[in-house]
Amino acid sequence: MEKSYLYFHDRFGGDEEHLHGISRVIYEVRTPYQYIQVVESPTFGKMLIIDGDVQSSLTDEYIYHESLVHPAMVSLKNPKVVVILGGGEGSTLREVLKHKTVSKAIMVDIDKDATDIAKEYMKEWHQGSFDDKRATLLNTDAREFVETSLSNSSVDVFISDLTEPYEQGPSYRLYSVEFYKTIFNRLKEDGVFVLQASLLRITDYKMHTIIRNTLKKVFPIVRSYFAYVPSFDTTWGFIIASKKHDPKNLTKEDIDIRIKERVSLSLKFYDGETHLALFNLPKDIRAIIEKDTDVITDEHYLPLKRKENL
Amino acid sequence: MEKSYLYFHDRFGGDEEHLHGISRVIYEVRTPYQYIQVVESPTFGKMLIIDGDVQSSLTDEYIYHESLVHPAMVSLKNPKVVVILGGGEGSTLREVLKHKTVSKAIMVDIDKDATDIAKEYMKEWHQGSFDDKRATLLNTDAREFVETSLSNSSVDVFISDLTEPYEQGPSYRLYSVEFYKTIFNRLKEDGVFVLQASLLRITDYKMHTIIRNTLKKVFPIVRSYFAYVPSFDTTWGFIIASKKHDPKNLTKEDIDIRIKERVSLSLKFYDGETHLALFNLPKDIRAIIEKDTDVITDEHYLPLKRKENL
Amino acid sequence: MEKSYLYFHDRFGGDEEHLHGISRVIYEVRTPYQYIQVVESPTFGKMLIIDGDVQSSLTDEYIYHESLVHPAMVSLKNPKVVVILGGGEGSTLREVLKHKTVSKAIMVDIDKDATDIAKEYMKEWHQGSFDDKRATLLNTDAREFVETSLSNSSVDVFISDLTEPYEQGPSYRLYSVEFYKTIFNRLKEDGVFVLQASLLRITDYKMHTIIRNTLKKVFPIVRSYFAYVPSFDTTWGFIIASKKHDPKNLTKEDIDIRIKERVSLSLKFYDGETHLALFNLPKDIRAIIEKDTDVITDEHYLPLKRKENL
Amino acid sequence: MEKSYLYFHDRFGGDEEHLHGISRVIYEVRTPYQYIQVVESPTFGKMLIIDGDVQSSLTDEYIYHESLVHPAMVSLKNPKVVVILGGGEGSTLREVLKHKTVSKAIMVDIDKDATDIAKEYMKEWHQGSFDDKRATLLNTDAREFVETSLSNSSVDVFISDLTEPYEQGPSYRLYSVEFYKTIFNRLKEDGVFVLQASLLRITDYKMHTIIRNTLKKVFPIVRSYFAYVPSFDTTWGFIIASKKHDPKNLTKEDIDIRIKERVSLSLKFYDGETHLALFNLPKDIRAIIEKDTDVITDEHYLPLKRKENL
Repeated sequence: MEKSYLYFHDRFGGDEEHLHGISRVIYEVRTPYQYIQVVESPTFGKMLIIDGDVQSSLTDEYIYHESLVHPAMVSLKNPKVVVILGGGEGSTLREVLKHKTVSKAIMVDIDKDATDIAKEYMKEWHQGSFDDKRATLLNTDAREFVETSLSNSSVDVFISDLTEPYEQGPSYRLYSVEFYKTIFNRLKEDGVFVLQASLLRITDYKMHTIIRNTLKKVFPIVRSYFAYVPSFDTTWGFIIASKKHDPKNLTKEDIDIRIKERVSLSLKFYDGETHLALFNLPKDIRAIIEKDTDVITDEHYLPLKRKENL
Repeated sequence: MEKSYLYFHDRFGGDEEHLHGISRVIYEVRTPYQYIQVVESPTFGKMLIIDGDVQSSLTDEYIYHESLVHPAMVSLKNPKVVVILGGGEGSTLREVLKHKTVSKAIMVDIDKDATDIAKEYMKEWHQGSFDDKRATLLNTDAREFVETSLSNSSVDVFISDLTEPYEQGPSYRLYSVEFYKTIFNRLKEDGVFVLQASLLRITDYKMHTIIRNTLKKVFPIVRSYFAYVPSFDTTWGFIIASKKHDPKNLTKEDIDIRIKERVSLSLKFYDGETHLALFNLPKDIRAIIEKDTDVITDEHYLPLKRKENL
Repeated sequence: MEKSYLYFHDRFGGDEEHLHGISRVIYEVRTPYQYIQVVESPTFGKMLIIDGDVQSSLTDEYIYHESLVHPAMVSLKNPKVVVILGGGEGSTLREVLKHKTVSKAIMVDIDKDATDIAKEYMKEWHQGSFDDKRATLLNTDAREFVETSLSNSSVDVFISDLTEPYEQGPSYRLYSVEFYKTIFNRLKEDGVFVLQASLLRITDYKMHTIIRNTLKKVFPIVRSYFAYVPSFDTTWGFIIASKKHDPKNLTKEDIDIRIKERVSLSLKFYDGETHLALFNLPKDIRAIIEKDTDVITDEHYLPLKRKENL
Repeated sequence: MEKSYLYFHDRFGGDEEHLHGISRVIYEVRTPYQYIQVVESPTFGKMLIIDGDVQSSLTDEYIYHESLVHPAMVSLKNPKVVVILGGGEGSTLREVLKHKTVSKAIMVDIDKDATDIAKEYMKEWHQGSFDDKRATLLNTDAREFVETSLSNSSVDVFISDLTEPYEQGPSYRLYSVEFYKTIFNRLKEDGVFVLQASLLRITDYKMHTIIRNTLKKVFPIVRSYFAYVPSFDTTWGFIIASKKHDPKNLTKEDIDIRIKERVSLSLKFYDGETHLALFNLPKDIRAIIEKDTDVITDEHYLPLKRKENL
């Protein structure tokens, strides 16, 4: 194979750096909110990079997006109203819409440039989901939308598909205990809230555990789970925060039946056995995720800098 | 943190390269069999590198070694005789000896320099296991040893902890169907054979699937499983090949009871829930591991070059 | 300074690699002849990269282009007709046109895409030179043009501003002894031929010395000289091959007078003292450039692969 | 060529990084003054690295050391007493001792570990010079030695072969205007002071120009010159500060005669023509070296951080 001349350097703390060959830069732009690059990797295909972090690659985005969406969705018998916070690429929306029970899917992403780029350059991701009649895309502040435009007990599933709240990032106010309380109120009695929750491995878990701990101040049930995403080179954490349903109690059979009944298109990653792989955490991970006592509030922000400075 | 001046470059195929800062090279030597480096990483602690591949790091070697040893060991009610092929660091031996049922653990590693280096520079790994009365270390060819020094139906557990059989590597003849037949014969009626089986992720799985397919020519039960190892930046594959016991049928409770009854020291990674995490594979991985039809034989070697040329 | 996410990797043989941060890829295309990238570097400004080799950067292109053009031009009392082989960016043409004596400057570059890119994206390089009445741009094969469209003794100065003749590169037939004989014939009695002649430093000089040796088969006077170009991280070699004038005999004063009389715009790099810096080579360089005996012919091509394989 | 697994990363400001493959780390130690590494490069041979900066490599150390020593030495008709500040490897001493006129060469390097490492691991550098009867090695503070142990008008040549005065480096007080005044006083009437004076290229010259400007406060004649050193990937600056002799006035013939008369062993780099190459600076370099007005004093230190932060 001819070697690349350009490399994307993914920084994992000062002394760990992963180099991904880049055969082509398809598009790049600095929006008011973030720096967005769409590039082509010989190994992972088209990749979306935001502020130096790989967001998703064509080869394995299904792992991330199926892991984010389906465990929350199958936890409910009949999820109708789904609200996605962020979700730029449109893949989270795509997975949500695969559930026939859904009547309304609202995606709120503040960065219109990001969703425009997805529409134009990432069609393999959204696959036309933005045109589905059940879908609504709003380019507005997600916090303001949740606070002012939704009524209490009206949402079945909230999905937080945001970049991490590093200092001065655009998504800072969407991770605080105050906002989580509002989410709690807007959810129906048996509603669930699922979040992408940063990388989770024994050498890097701080961001995950702070988010987890903040959620525990509000929700009675909080479950961490993780999946390995090759283009991230790491296991990635997710959290389901729930009022009533514990996703870990679902059996393999329950899940396979619900998928069969209601999911219109085939899934590549998720099914009953995968669910067990996601929610049965190794002993060491179970230990570290309990470590943190920090809470993100509107006033008191967590002390994490960008990855290169961790 | 002060940045390193030296970096270990871990090559994942031509265009993917992971850089690990190195604060110190503790020892390096080219033995008749391989190039061995013991280095210090600010992130992962002491690391063992052989021929450019990270073998294990102090921070996370327990993940690899517990995953390799315990599922096979707990599959049996009363494992007494264990033979380790390779296993240079002594950690595999250490985990084996934690099982009180074991009366004899033989480790056969051809490279005396490698085991001497482990004894001298990697005490945190073996923790004195080489001095255990039940342990025997032989620096001889493992194939010849298995063929000539062991009788049929005499071994409870074989553990293959060898470097991968890349072209001209030292461990080539320890992966062929002919050798696996000998292993089968040397095993007791309910014996199991477990192997480290190369990286396993959707972008890199060829080596794993060839080993798996070769084992299926000999053993009735062949189970792949995997664990994420941070210093490898990837999920790592293992395979249990068995005459009778299927490790996937073990329940969480079975395992926790067996560990409690027989394992003398505490485990950091493995327990009943971890077992479910290891053996429940995601749907995409279940699909790719069935793909291969190649078989390694003494005559027909598999066409894999070293990683940098894959 | 914020660190870049993308890096251009400039390979100097397998184990030497220079990484240049890239803030933006301005344009990239694979033409029928070569792979062209125009990128932005925080250190060097806009950069032109062809087939993985830095061709020139905005910050220091004047060093390369003034070194290439002016020593040959000032060697002649009255250079009128100048032919440039290659010269994609238009900077060589720009420097040639600064000499008021020039009545005709013909630039022959086979790759129309390359000169179109220069016109559109590299205006700081050519600075409108393509529109000068004295200039002609031909996108045709330079060898054929020299052989069929020029008459003998008609050219004052030939300037070879081509990529190196690595295996299968587009410029292979423009470096042979046969072609050099044609150049010799097309030159006037006191004409000179100047070439960019690859990197020249004590660890890398093979390409330079082969070109030099080939020229010596044809021209009575052959002078190597070099200049350090920061974005190349190395000293770069040039050669003047001449029928009559030896550039090394020019005094500092001669040169400053000729520049003053005839060069319309100011020069940033070249003057009488710079000429001494260019043509007085260190003792070690004088020794190595005499080493080679290989000659490039139309039949017998030199055995050099691309840099990464040297 | 087999690729290396370890690389030394030479940082040229945040976004420029040069990677040198390392086949072996021969020795490394953190002394009270600096972090010293002796490594083996396939391209440059044995290399000495101090605090992340390449100090010299076996392949090209003669360029640096001959450039540092001989122009100053040949400026004088009869240099007898030479004092070297720093000079750890012993190569500067080696070059000084080649001049038969020298009766006394004193080398003052504060770091005994550094000179011990040189004696043990860098014999190709010093070549036994420490054992020459005319040589004295003192491991003491150079400033204190010059101030207290030398009398006025007693030294022919001072040679400053120190690491640059980055913040908190060991050599900070050896670059101030106060110390330079002492040097001036200790020199004989026609004595010269020569310094290695940091990298000098149009993108990096700040350190050089500050040292130059500080010298101009004390010495009537101050001449910058430079040479390209391959393992540094850059031209390197030197400065001669003189009471009376201007090295630029020396002719090629003068130099070749003085070398012939007095230098016992052959030189690989320096001779009359090389002298012209060193002291005739390109026009752009002549412009930038005049830019600075900063002066280093004992009180007011220059504001330069280590390279990675420039």
